[in-house]
Amino acid sequence: MQLTDYIRTVEDFPKQGISYKDITPLLLDSKACKHAVSEIIKGLNGERITKVVGIESRGFLFGMLLANALDVGFVPIRKQGKLPAETHSQSYELEYGSDTIEIHKDAIHQGDRILLHDDLLATGGTAAAAYQLIKELKGEIVQVNFIVELDSLNGRRLLPKAKINSLIHY
Amino acid sequence: MQLTDYIRTVEDFPKQGISYKDITPLLLDSKACKHAVSEIIKGLNGERITKVVGIESRGFLFGMLLANALDVGFVPIRKQGKLPAETHSQSYELEYGSDTIEIHKDAIHQGDRILLHDDLLATGGTAAAAYQLIKELKGEIVQVNFIVELDSLNGRRLLPKAKINSLIHY
Repeated sequence: MQLTDYIRTVEDFPKQGISYKDITPLLLDSKACKHAVSEIIKGLNGERITKVVGIESRGFLFGMLLANALDVGFVPIRKQGKLPAETHSQSYELEYGSDTIEIHKDAIHQGDRILLHDDLLATGGTAAAAYQLIKELKGEIVQVNFIVELDSLNGRRLLPKAKINSLIHY
Repeated sequence: MQLTDYIRTVEDFPKQGISYKDITPLLLDSKACKHAVSEIIKGLNGERITKVVGIESRGFLFGMLLANALDVGFVPIRKQGKLPAETHSQSYELEYGSDTIEIHKDAIHQGDRILLHDDLLATGGTAAAAYQLIKELKGEIVQVNFIVELDSLNGRRLLPKAKINSLIHY
């Protein structure tokens, strides 16, 4: 099974000149989703994971499937103001302006071994901020996983210490 | 297992006087998540489902688990401007102003039997707009499912034709 068969490129979205990688055809195929989950778990090489952290909102999709397959809890990282209990916040730069994401302070503890997941690694700003949030809570980040990585944007430079596993590279 | 044990009430969030029902403790417990999924599937009484539709962003969480458990595809309904291909849109009223959600036009076809899922039924505006989007694409909505329903807000009045199943009522 070729996972790239389930990724659709939409030109000029969200703006002129961008080739958007759309994972919705993958979501529509349950066999392909199960295959993606099993490939991600293979990529862990048996490393023990105690929690999966997924980044709002597309990181919730496979994040929950991964937590379910690994029989561990799921922790959402959300946009500012969405999590109701006490949070840690992290801001990061966008092309224009900045954005802030948050995690519940009581969601991760020292000794937790984390699989951090998002669907796409582009410039890496969000993933690096999420990485920082987990570190602040003393979680050990075993691996950072993406369905799709856009190699030309070199998002990895913002995650110099992370073990990164992406299923598909463009 | 009592699912209510995994829902945390946070007072005065997002504003004074609101008792927010927080599902993040449920997400942290993989056994409780599997139990929730199995209870939702029991509630389908064997009805055939061909696709699960989940509403951004918290409807993505159990929406994907349900699609995975039922071996069917998942269709995301997203906030305006987030889905890259051709969409149907539906606006709905909020306490102040309005909001718009969208679905990919090619995601649902006549003959599809849909389980529509979101985590929370409050006033019902979002769920009713999602219901309308699926109807426009000629999908048959077999059931609308929520983890939590706030009975006092009577969101069901906006879904008069729907079969609704909520795991937890407040």
